[in-house]
Amino acid sequence: MITWKVSERPLLYKPVLVEGLPGVGNVGKITVEYLVQKLKAKKFAEIYSDHFPYHVFIDKKSTVNLPRNEFYYYKGAKHDIVFLTGDFQSMTPQGHYEIIDAVLNFSKELGVKEIITVGGFGVEGIPKNPQVLGAVTHEKIIKGFKEFGVTFEDGERVGMIVGASGLLLGLGKLRGFEGICLMGETFSRPMFTDARASKAVLGVISEYFKMPIDMNDMNLKAKELDTAITKAKELEEQMVKQTNKPEQDLRYIG
Amino acid sequence: MITWKVSERPLLYKPVLVEGLPGVGNVGKITVEYLVQKLKAKKFAEIYSDHFPYHVFIDKKSTVNLPRNEFYYYKGAKHDIVFLTGDFQSMTPQGHYEIIDAVLNFSKELGVKEIITVGGFGVEGIPKNPQVLGAVTHEKIIKGFKEFGVTFEDGERVGMIVGASGLLLGLGKLRGFEGICLMGETFSRPMFTDARASKAVLGVISEYFKMPIDMNDMNLKAKELDTAITKAKELEEQMVKQTNKPEQDLRYIG
Amino acid sequence: MITWKVSERPLLYKPVLVEGLPGVGNVGKITVEYLVQKLKAKKFAEIYSDHFPYHVFIDKKSTVNLPRNEFYYYKGAKHDIVFLTGDFQSMTPQGHYEIIDAVLNFSKELGVKEIITVGGFGVEGIPKNPQVLGAVTHEKIIKGFKEFGVTFEDGERVGMIVGASGLLLGLGKLRGFEGICLMGETFSRPMFTDARASKAVLGVISEYFKMPIDMNDMNLKAKELDTAITKAKELEEQMVKQTNKPEQDLRYIG
Amino acid sequence: MITWKVSERPLLYKPVLVEGLPGVGNVGKITVEYLVQKLKAKKFAEIYSDHFPYHVFIDKKSTVNLPRNEFYYYKGAKHDIVFLTGDFQSMTPQGHYEIIDAVLNFSKELGVKEIITVGGFGVEGIPKNPQVLGAVTHEKIIKGFKEFGVTFEDGERVGMIVGASGLLLGLGKLRGFEGICLMGETFSRPMFTDARASKAVLGVISEYFKMPIDMNDMNLKAKELDTAITKAKELEEQMVKQTNKPEQDLRYIG
Repeated sequence: MITWKVSERPLLYKPVLVEGLPGVGNVGKITVEYLVQKLKAKKFAEIYSDHFPYHVFIDKKSTVNLPRNEFYYYKGAKHDIVFLTGDFQSMTPQGHYEIIDAVLNFSKELGVKEIITVGGFGVEGIPKNPQVLGAVTHEKIIKGFKEFGVTFEDGERVGMIVGASGLLLGLGKLRGFEGICLMGETFSRPMFTDARASKAVLGVISEYFKMPIDMNDMNLKAKELDTAITKAKELEEQMVKQTNKPEQDLRYIG
Repeated sequence: MITWKVSERPLLYKPVLVEGLPGVGNVGKITVEYLVQKLKAKKFAEIYSDHFPYHVFIDKKSTVNLPRNEFYYYKGAKHDIVFLTGDFQSMTPQGHYEIIDAVLNFSKELGVKEIITVGGFGVEGIPKNPQVLGAVTHEKIIKGFKEFGVTFEDGERVGMIVGASGLLLGLGKLRGFEGICLMGETFSRPMFTDARASKAVLGVISEYFKMPIDMNDMNLKAKELDTAITKAKELEEQMVKQTNKPEQDLRYIG
Repeated sequence: MITWKVSERPLLYKPVLVEGLPGVGNVGKITVEYLVQKLKAKKFAEIYSDHFPYHVFIDKKSTVNLPRNEFYYYKGAKHDIVFLTGDFQSMTPQGHYEIIDAVLNFSKELGVKEIITVGGFGVEGIPKNPQVLGAVTHEKIIKGFKEFGVTFEDGERVGMIVGASGLLLGLGKLRGFEGICLMGETFSRPMFTDARASKAVLGVISEYFKMPIDMNDMNLKAKELDTAITKAKELEEQMVKQTNKPEQDLRYIG
Repeated sequence: MITWKVSERPLLYKPVLVEGLPGVGNVGKITVEYLVQKLKAKKFAEIYSDHFPYHVFIDKKSTVNLPRNEFYYYKGAKHDIVFLTGDFQSMTPQGHYEIIDAVLNFSKELGVKEIITVGGFGVEGIPKNPQVLGAVTHEKIIKGFKEFGVTFEDGERVGMIVGASGLLLGLGKLRGFEGICLMGETFSRPMFTDARASKAVLGVISEYFKMPIDMNDMNLKAKELDTAITKAKELEEQMVKQTNKPEQDLRYIG
């Protein structure tokens, strides 16, 4: 069961869909949310699904809203952009296919032919200077993005792309869309939000659209992250020391 | 698969849907069941779903019935009321959406434009004088209910409303309904039924509909609850004492 | 997805559906299979569902068959009988509703208005003289079956009937069918097949249809069960003795 | 949700569907992939389903593809052959039925009346000279395959066939197809790929289609397997020795 709430049918010039939803390092979501905010993109549609959680959120005005994904548009120079973001991906495998199917139909109606999906790629440790890895629907797309510093690794490290970022390209390819997934290297630990990985992806997007993006706030978030990481490391070292104290295991020795 | 059994199509004046189904502290269910009983509301419809459990109950007459939700109506002064209650909510996430969708369609046919859902909000410990917290579909609804003592907390404590009470408002809002969820503070422990929280919600409902409700039986239940809580605390204290007896752990010491 | 394979459309006189599928003590399945065999009932239909397991069985002729439920008919004196049995019930809750819905539609086409479902009711220990408990769609059915020794207990012991035996009556009642569930008291342990409980139910069915049933083979099975129970008890006692030997726990004492 | 991508509609002479998908010992998949490679069969169709995993794979060209099953055809002498293989079977029971249903419809359109499914049959230990066990839709098929050395065991050892290899025959039988499942005896341990079992099945297929198959590469794989097994055994023996060292359990003795 899918419900659309569409408040405007914008006329768009060569629109590109840029998707970022929750996932590893939350890279997709914060990247697209940052773009929406900085570019003052305009919300024009929402999609609701019975494969999102069966609850409502209460916001600061004490009003309730169902989980949903949101569409924004931005009138750019080289391309107009349709942004897709939200608080959730489908809770079920079948729901993933159903929602992405609906999103692709909607995108086609808007004139979208090109899709950029944003995600994180989990690595060991927290990368100081995260790379942006790429995977494409068609080989011809690789060359242009290599020039913007995107790394392509022949599927050796990144074996698969799970969820919306993957299915948009996979199902999209079957229906005539072209696209790329941009994955910022990040720390694969739940609840970790990685501003540094997002910064790296934003750089690529800025170059691709020939569109300057005010990076001040994201730089700030990256610094806050640095501070938080330093603190967490200190805390961890303390805990390790305490855990290794010999009394701990005495009862096993009897 | 949804099956309706409708025995009457009542003509209703400005009907408000008041929902209370099983949930935290069972506040919703006992509140609406109490209203149905005291107001002698009349049953006129039942809804069956394959997302309810796949068994029948045997009642005191040795007859069997499928799990179901039930609709009652009451002819009031300010508003007629449609009550929705039952022994179950959907067993699956998708079922929640499907059933609430059907309930909203049915409500629209009855002329319902306003929905009050009743639930419990779990807190630490058993509140002696539970507050009634509110969350609404539209900001304009807040003011009136504040006057009846409902607390609105900007989504800080209550982050979300799970199940029917939430979806009725969330999906309902998308389809032009207005409404509020009234949540009595209660003890968030399974199988706990909280008459005190129900009393608090009943007070708000009575004021909203300008409708006196005989509270004697609910007061009685609240007193029984007080007695039960006192006993449970004594029992718990005894158990704590016994558990702390030193012999218990001897075998670990070896 | 439901697939029917119907080899004959029999003309039936006041047909009654008698259902027995796997369940507690396997009482339903062995009772109906025994009736099919003794009455030489004729197979005329099979129902297949994607809610049965996704495998085929290999039979003694090395041929494969999907899991299915089977329909047989028997031309009786007072009533013709449609038997429903098989190796499986649905593996999912939604499947239960879907299959029973299809069975009820099929039964209606055959002219069935009355349904007898057979199951087991699990009790502590293995009952020597199991009672047959009943639950009905309509109160008026009780009286006749009381005369055949069926016990009706006002829903106190038997709170619910799970699966096909319950849903056939529950969904059936909503569509104008009348019926009873006959439950033989049995030992509620998995993989236990209770010929004594089946004997008790067969007695009721024989009386209801005024139809003698050759009980020799079932008596034999009941005797084999008696022997098996005696042996199992002896084995259990031996094991209890051995388990209680003091050496067993030495390592915990240290 | 099923999506077909069909690049060619070949005219086929008495086509036989030969299926091999991942399963026990991976026998089905490697057998059919080997045939596709050695016979230079031509890919002409792909099937996608929302019951496959909800991710895309990244291949060596950094391009993404959804999980899918693939169809190839080969123009043979006695029969043309349609091969079905792929990286996945359905992740859900209902999906198995839905996909096989679609495959059967597609096969019927291609003129297929006969189906050979290939799988492994798990036994204890790693069989040096694995037998090929058979199970059929119709008894008349047995005789011919017995002549090629296939063993039929009256369902005594092999009780059931799970997944695509079973459902293709089971659902196929209901729709007028005939067929056989060829099961190579193999070691039932996950992630184990058994070239010896595949060799045995390839022998039968070669004889059935009167079609020589270049076995050099498969013989090589079988030898590599032999070497790997020998090494694994040595490793296991070492581990057993180490595990049995008496110090290990000291702490339990206290």
